Amino acid sequence: MLNIGVIGYGYWGPNIVRNFVGTDGAKVAAVCDKNAATFKKLILSNPSILVSSDSKAIIESPTVDAVAIVTPVFTHYELAKRALENGKHIFVEKPFTDSVAHAEELVNLAEQKNLVIMVDHTFLFTGAVKKIKELIKERALGKIYYYDSTRVNLGLFQHDINVIWDLAPHDFAILNYLIADQPVAVTACGRAHINGHEDIAYISVFFSSNLIAHINVNWLSPVKVRTTLIGGEKKMLVWNDIADDEKIKVYDKGIDVTTKEDIYELLVNYRSGDIWIPRLDNLEALKQETAYFVECVKNGAKPINGGQAGLQVVRMLDACDQSLRQNGKTVSL
Amino acid sequence: MLNIGVIGYGYWGPNIVRNFVGTDGAKVAAVCDKNAATFKKLILSNPSILVSSDSKAIIESPTVDAVAIVTPVFTHYELAKRALENGKHIFVEKPFTDSVAHAEELVNLAEQKNLVIMVDHTFLFTGAVKKIKELIKERALGKIYYYDSTRVNLGLFQHDINVIWDLAPHDFAILNYLIADQPVAVTACGRAHINGHEDIAYISVFFSSNLIAHINVNWLSPVKVRTTLIGGEKKMLVWNDIADDEKIKVYDKGIDVTTKEDIYELLVNYRSGDIWIPRLDNLEALKQETAYFVECVKNGAKPINGGQAGLQVVRMLDACDQSLRQNGKTVSL
Amino acid sequence: MLNIGVIGYGYWGPNIVRNFVGTDGAKVAAVCDKNAATFKKLILSNPSILVSSDSKAIIESPTVDAVAIVTPVFTHYELAKRALENGKHIFVEKPFTDSVAHAEELVNLAEQKNLVIMVDHTFLFTGAVKKIKELIKERALGKIYYYDSTRVNLGLFQHDINVIWDLAPHDFAILNYLIADQPVAVTACGRAHINGHEDIAYISVFFSSNLIAHINVNWLSPVKVRTTLIGGEKKMLVWNDIADDEKIKVYDKGIDVTTKEDIYELLVNYRSGDIWIPRLDNLEALKQETAYFVECVKNGAKPINGGQAGLQVVRMLDACDQSLRQNGKTVSL
Amino acid sequence: MLNIGVIGYGYWGPNIVRNFVGTDGAKVAAVCDKNAATFKKLILSNPSILVSSDSKAIIESPTVDAVAIVTPVFTHYELAKRALENGKHIFVEKPFTDSVAHAEELVNLAEQKNLVIMVDHTFLFTGAVKKIKELIKERALGKIYYYDSTRVNLGLFQHDINVIWDLAPHDFAILNYLIADQPVAVTACGRAHINGHEDIAYISVFFSSNLIAHINVNWLSPVKVRTTLIGGEKKMLVWNDIADDEKIKVYDKGIDVTTKEDIYELLVNYRSGDIWIPRLDNLEALKQETAYFVECVKNGAKPINGGQAGLQVVRMLDACDQSLRQNGKTVSL
Repeated sequence: MLNIGVIGYGYWGPNIVRNFVGTDGAKVAAVCDKNAATFKKLILSNPSILVSSDSKAIIESPTVDAVAIVTPVFTHYELAKRALENGKHIFVEKPFTDSVAHAEELVNLAEQKNLVIMVDHTFLFTGAVKKIKELIKERALGKIYYYDSTRVNLGLFQHDINVIWDLAPHDFAILNYLIADQPVAVTACGRAHINGHEDIAYISVFFSSNLIAHINVNWLSPVKVRTTLIGGEKKMLVWNDIADDEKIKVYDKGIDVTTKEDIYELLVNYRSGDIWIPRLDNLEALKQETAYFVECVKNGAKPINGGQAGLQVVRMLDACDQSLRQNGKTVSL
Repeated sequence: MLNIGVIGYGYWGPNIVRNFVGTDGAKVAAVCDKNAATFKKLILSNPSILVSSDSKAIIESPTVDAVAIVTPVFTHYELAKRALENGKHIFVEKPFTDSVAHAEELVNLAEQKNLVIMVDHTFLFTGAVKKIKELIKERALGKIYYYDSTRVNLGLFQHDINVIWDLAPHDFAILNYLIADQPVAVTACGRAHINGHEDIAYISVFFSSNLIAHINVNWLSPVKVRTTLIGGEKKMLVWNDIADDEKIKVYDKGIDVTTKEDIYELLVNYRSGDIWIPRLDNLEALKQETAYFVECVKNGAKPINGGQAGLQVVRMLDACDQSLRQNGKTVSL
Repeated sequence: MLNIGVIGYGYWGPNIVRNFVGTDGAKVAAVCDKNAATFKKLILSNPSILVSSDSKAIIESPTVDAVAIVTPVFTHYELAKRALENGKHIFVEKPFTDSVAHAEELVNLAEQKNLVIMVDHTFLFTGAVKKIKELIKERALGKIYYYDSTRVNLGLFQHDINVIWDLAPHDFAILNYLIADQPVAVTACGRAHINGHEDIAYISVFFSSNLIAHINVNWLSPVKVRTTLIGGEKKMLVWNDIADDEKIKVYDKGIDVTTKEDIYELLVNYRSGDIWIPRLDNLEALKQETAYFVECVKNGAKPINGGQAGLQVVRMLDACDQSLRQNGKTVSL
Repeated sequence: MLNIGVIGYGYWGPNIVRNFVGTDGAKVAAVCDKNAATFKKLILSNPSILVSSDSKAIIESPTVDAVAIVTPVFTHYELAKRALENGKHIFVEKPFTDSVAHAEELVNLAEQKNLVIMVDHTFLFTGAVKKIKELIKERALGKIYYYDSTRVNLGLFQHDINVIWDLAPHDFAILNYLIADQPVAVTACGRAHINGHEDIAYISVFFSSNLIAHINVNWLSPVKVRTTLIGGEKKMLVWNDIADDEKIKVYDKGIDVTTKEDIYELLVNYRSGDIWIPRLDNLEALKQETAYFVECVKNGAKPINGGQAGLQVVRMLDACDQSLRQNGKTVSL
């Protein structure tokens, strides 16, 4: 049985607790939050969980095997470091840390101590991303041309980070998971209209191939959009994560190019076939992720969303910040 | 009566002819195209129109007052110059020319000769753009924060220009028309997957204020999207040009910021009210534009889509090309 | 403080308990269900609630003031009768009873004993229905021409009732609430394909005026639809209850009829104006209904969804069954 | 070469002429219309077509082989009869005639004279209906449970017929084409709000099996809807004819029923799989229909949309009118 201590019981913490409570082989031993009032309901329904306002009670507890860190990003490094130093496996909210150096240090520390880091890139465990991964793996889309994501809505304004650090980690984590190719550079531009942090930003990610990724994030949109287009040589897909059903549509659509050699002319043919809407597994993503964490700890396995994956996302966020400060200059990764 | 000669009777030419034929005060005197076969139907229904395979027959005709140039962009300058030199007013397909220098020369020439240039920025005459202009003019949206356009679909691959020169002129023309502020710089990045010309590109346009514009153009999208979000301080709107009805939705939605002075803290309030879908004038845009051309010539008026407007769009396209070649570097206008 | 006993803790019961628990002036004193296993979670989070497998413990309890009956329809009459006889106010799931005679008897009994009956017509407390009621009340739609509802989806097959008794109570309750006019007759036809109960049915409701209502209910639809069109002389509206936002669209659209008297000819003009999407109150409907129950009991007020409203819905359901058995014959109410 | 005379050049006539002009093996020899002004454009583009204001010029012309009757329904019988008597094949607008007796007489007359009748049930030639027919034929949907069509929009009010005669012929023709089973009875109810003709109506069609069809027609809807649900034992489909693409979605969704014999209990399982959007042939339906007419005449073949098909639709329309007059009574066919 893996005894888990959860630090942070604000917006997302209750979901983490609920899912670890429901995970075989795991037990939520303790929860801490600065604001003790948040525990009222928790205590009623889970009287056996220890509650505390001090993270020390969890990080230094001999009965805690793993620590889930569900606090604002600027606190992750400090808490994670202490947890690793105390021999705990860690499950950390995204983005992993607030700087590349911090992330690297944690990755190295876990390596030395042979501990598991998992970063909560929940989207990798959704039916949609799993299906897209499967399609790419079996080369159903052919060579990938582009990944184009729009992730906009009204608010929620964050006071310590800009819209890129808030929303783009989802896309970076997904992109790195789906695409075998490594990103080599990013460019980002944006504007701050309200509180000094960019509330709108446009990010391009370049790869060594001619694949291009683009991410449009915006806290000032009147409509919520979560749409990703992935174009491939053979097929293309649209992933609309807002849709109740029919989240993914696969289009047998594209362009075939032939060359009439004698006249050196390119002939472009448009292809348009059936559309296919695969049924997706609709298990709760976070439940699968918490189970996977328990499994990785048990087997000493490296998670797909481990420290390296978390670090790579932070690298991309950091490069975006550099590009933003230089008015959209391309920044190598 | 304004006698009009039309050069080019390919994809768009028949629309130009049809609309000038139906415009009071105008008469289509002659049409020319290299491919004489295209005239068959035209001659049957409009036997009085002279047809020819040589543009000279139009440009040097003493009975032609104005010339409509509906040919590929690389031919515009040469034809337009000859037409102006022969004292003809000109109506030119978008984009105006293939270079800034060419556009400037034509603008100067028309100025000297006191002739009208109109560039076919048809969108300015749609019910949608007219309604948005009206809303911005009466300050219904408040200060504009951003203009974010997605203009993607499968094909039509052009052989001489990239996707920016094909699709972005629409957005640049609309943007310049709607926004009083001047754009000061652009950045563009994209990739070519098929025929050596960029088929996907992402453009940001910067202004002296913190308004930002972004344009997503793509010839490789499995779905057709023509959606523009315009966010303002007071209201926001979504313009979906694909929709049959309900093209424009105005959202009484936004963010109010107040400051509690004593604690120097920003309070962000979300506002969410009714949505309003204004009825739009659904006259044919091109018909209104051709009538406006006749009127401008008659009154010696400067069109809103005159040479300067066309030149500004070409400047932005040219800056995009420079940015593309420098991997997304910001290029001043 | 109103002490409430809840009978039935299956699919809907937990919602009733949760909402009464959160209602000022109410206290859930006891819950009973035949299946004791269902209580596990309830007891943890609400240890003060008495649980039992016998309804007697609630109905005859001297400390219980009101009984919520959240059981299958065929049990309502018996439980409600005993509760009223024991001097309890009752809150009953829809449909009120399984026969007109039963409903009438309960209404009379409550009348004699001066007790409140409330039937759980939850929809009347939604933002959507409240807004439509307001629009009709202020005569914004003008004279109502029709009410046309489609309420279809896959399953949930009921084993004791047909699709009309399952889904149409919503529409009948809404219709009776919105429309001042009394329905005078119904006709219904349908077919059973799976288990001997009609899984598809089409219902028309006639009024003394030329208003007509139609309800399409179906357990065998591949898509979920919850759309109601209401057409009026002045305006028309579409209520799409599936939509996350934008549930109600009000169309300034319609037909104006004028008569040229001398030629006895009808001139029909089509009117098409703006569309308006009002912001709706998005409080939880059931929470408002439970608060309203407490208020009605306290003030001895007749609820809008009282015994008479419940009886009228049962009358319409019963008439539908008669019509079904006579192959769609019109049955007076 | 089949010489065709077209009677009626109002709203639909120009489409008929354009398509017969473009059909191999056919020649539009003459067109007549009471209103001579309508011909202006026709004469310009097709100077060889004879025009006239008198149908006699067509019906009695020795050079005309077939007559297309594109006039209001109350005139069809008289014109069609004269045409057949003069040995002409006929192509008649839907609905075929205004009464069953008239339709029967024409069918018999054509039979005697060995002439082809084709009724313009254009929908049978659309990519959507052809695909649905194919799916039903190959038993992809399994046993059909229901056909449920909604065909509503604002206007166009007809002055001589009600909304059933205007819109339901489409559904009756499609239904009779798709479903092998014969309809045995109909019921219809509706209301007239504007000009004395029903503008809203609800029609049910019964079959000897437990298949049920329902058609919702309405001239007073603020939104245009053209949606048909077809539910089968194995699969279900939604046909949205308004959609630009993706008109037909096939759902691998349904209900499986098993019986546990020993306990005589029905077990209902819900099945939910992929969705498939087949690419449809998007040739112009009317063009295929006119080519088919020429072919049927040449080969002396009985069209799928021949006199019998037209007669059956008229029978159903007539039964609807009887049902309307008897307040929704079921009328046998």
